[in-house]
Amino acid sequence: MPEFFKVMSVDEVKEKIREWFGHLKPEGERVPIEDGLDRVLFEDVISPENLPGFDRSAVDGYALKAEDTFGASEAMPALLEVIGEIGMGQVPAMCLGSGQAAGISTGGMLPEGADSVVMIEDTDLLGDKTLNIYKAVSPGENVIRRDEDIKKGETLLKKGHRLRPQDIGALAGVGITRVDVSRRPRVVIISTGDELVEPAAVPRIGQIRDINSYTLSGLVQQYGGEPLRFGIIQDTYNALFEAVEKGIAEGDMVVISGGSSVGTRDVTGRVIGDLGSPGVLVHGVSVKPGKPTIIASAGGKPVLGLPGHPVSAMVIFGIFGREIINLKLGYRGGSLKVKAVMGRNIASSAGREDYIRISLIENHGQLTAIPVLGKSGLISTMVKARGTVKIPACKEGIREGEPVDVEIF
Amino acid sequence: MPEFFKVMSVDEVKEKIREWFGHLKPEGERVPIEDGLDRVLFEDVISPENLPGFDRSAVDGYALKAEDTFGASEAMPALLEVIGEIGMGQVPAMCLGSGQAAGISTGGMLPEGADSVVMIEDTDLLGDKTLNIYKAVSPGENVIRRDEDIKKGETLLKKGHRLRPQDIGALAGVGITRVDVSRRPRVVIISTGDELVEPAAVPRIGQIRDINSYTLSGLVQQYGGEPLRFGIIQDTYNALFEAVEKGIAEGDMVVISGGSSVGTRDVTGRVIGDLGSPGVLVHGVSVKPGKPTIIASAGGKPVLGLPGHPVSAMVIFGIFGREIINLKLGYRGGSLKVKAVMGRNIASSAGREDYIRISLIENHGQLTAIPVLGKSGLISTMVKARGTVKIPACKEGIREGEPVDVEIF
Repeated sequence: MPEFFKVMSVDEVKEKIREWFGHLKPEGERVPIEDGLDRVLFEDVISPENLPGFDRSAVDGYALKAEDTFGASEAMPALLEVIGEIGMGQVPAMCLGSGQAAGISTGGMLPEGADSVVMIEDTDLLGDKTLNIYKAVSPGENVIRRDEDIKKGETLLKKGHRLRPQDIGALAGVGITRVDVSRRPRVVIISTGDELVEPAAVPRIGQIRDINSYTLSGLVQQYGGEPLRFGIIQDTYNALFEAVEKGIAEGDMVVISGGSSVGTRDVTGRVIGDLGSPGVLVHGVSVKPGKPTIIASAGGKPVLGLPGHPVSAMVIFGIFGREIINLKLGYRGGSLKVKAVMGRNIASSAGREDYIRISLIENHGQLTAIPVLGKSGLISTMVKARGTVKIPACKEGIREGEPVDVEIF
Repeated sequence: MPEFFKVMSVDEVKEKIREWFGHLKPEGERVPIEDGLDRVLFEDVISPENLPGFDRSAVDGYALKAEDTFGASEAMPALLEVIGEIGMGQVPAMCLGSGQAAGISTGGMLPEGADSVVMIEDTDLLGDKTLNIYKAVSPGENVIRRDEDIKKGETLLKKGHRLRPQDIGALAGVGITRVDVSRRPRVVIISTGDELVEPAAVPRIGQIRDINSYTLSGLVQQYGGEPLRFGIIQDTYNALFEAVEKGIAEGDMVVISGGSSVGTRDVTGRVIGDLGSPGVLVHGVSVKPGKPTIIASAGGKPVLGLPGHPVSAMVIFGIFGREIINLKLGYRGGSLKVKAVMGRNIASSAGREDYIRISLIENHGQLTAIPVLGKSGLISTMVKARGTVKIPACKEGIREGEPVDVEIF
């Protein structure tokens, strides 16, 4: 690899990613709303209708004119005439005049002439028709107005929003049964390294099974992409070049999880460098773990060269891979970090972002982050960890008791 | 419904659910690990192997005997003879004697006789064979021991754990390619109410589209179950009874989201009461929203009668439905709540748990929860909300600035 690449900071790289890959636009696909959970909206959703579409009772009781109840109290009830009962899902047949009321259930449509509903608990029916009302209601009370839930023409949901159960319910509510979401970005995952074998194989001594293809596939799924596992590619220039070229043709992005040997790194670096213009954009990031990260662009598609250590590969993909997936999804939301306090002093070198694996302990509602120590080659440290805490480049560590944001892994 | 049911507290009901439905045991099914993300482990996973299985270098450098470097420094380097280079994925051909070293890459296997690795940065190779070492290493330094990542026979993952990307990677690493997970609980979802129509239909005035079937399906998926939407069932005893009976036969649990009218509630209540012993267990919970909740057991299968209001149905299913799904999954983990401070005073009646919809604002790393006001009949309030905050029964409200736990919805 050329030697003139300057090691960049994480924030510089993130900013550059948005610049270099800003052309990665979401592509829409229409899905039934029942398949829409966790998908990202491709377009704003404008409501085609009012919801509920008619004035609707929010309680069980009697529809009436509020003015007929003014001054009503336990001691001096208002007296109204009940002229009928409103059926659910029906347009009321009656029109209320002064001094009249109609029985109504929660969700029932208000009859013409009514402007409010008195709760059944605040009334007494004497015989069939005479209603005592013990509490005054104001106009609009206990009524869901025709456009109170959702207004026709309002922006119900914004593009870039990830659909939750309630969003899908709201779409159903206004009659939208299919929705345009961003196509899942296809992320090609390649593992390389002569020491690697497939998980189903029995490794000979000196060999090791491919872990990164599986951790990275899982992260791609979590971030809303579709993993395309190419498996283990032989550690030669030709084999790797061919695989990456195929990956660029089939995927929106290619991730190569480097074997950890010098030789493999060299081959990976050369292949990425030879994919064409503009080529390698980043070679080396001031972050731990994950310094030897490579980011390139081949025909406008991102190629990410990750370190071979399982922890490094996950952490780096969680920063840069996720950023690229979000671009292609058009995802506008952030990831919610969990607040905790650091349980121990932890040192870090200034000038480098450190990602510390941590477990979480809850005590009296307070979450404490405890560092999980161990080499970044140990997948078990990520299994024991609940997330990571970032130590910014400008800090030389975090003291016990300091508040921290935990990225859940 | 019989009148003798006592309104129970949320915690009482939760405890009772574990008692009444403690017989709901997870059922295992074997899936390929690549389909395992977010599934809950049916059994402990014991590692069949050591990982990495051999002593492995954690860095690029030279394998050697640590004692040969004792006292080495910039001023007084140790001098060793390089007797070869270790190929990746190979069993080293050499055996190191005193004063000897072998080139090794990250991930390479240590040769016999070596107990540590010196980093390449701390050495100088003079000619082909003479190695200057400027820094002493201790035994084991820069080596991942044969069982340092995962030990043969250790419990790698516990039953009841939800699989994350790193867990799947660790399974791959020890050669486990298929894993036993809990079958997804099948949750039958029934909507009833004469005012309801399917989302694809054009409602007549007075009618409204079915929202709850869709919000509840989404929650079931989020909680790890499989929704079986039975759609809108006519609001008659016979139609509903038949649907619920079919639901009990086909599902692990039946959820009826009641139409909101008195008539529908009565029919739902009678049907649930007639399903057989032990029948209705809870009728009324001191919670807002969601007081008219019904929980029954039909042949040991839970039947949950939810209020018709979209917000109430979601909140109540999020409490009790999730609890039952977790039982059937054997899920042991909790849900991580997000810490925030309340942004406004909010009142609540003592003796009743209140669930307040809130949005979240982030400011200088501090999350503030702002109540989203509005009737529980408005799905739009859940769309605007980011989660809920619980006000316990013993409290009469939460003051501005008080810390709260947010359940993300």
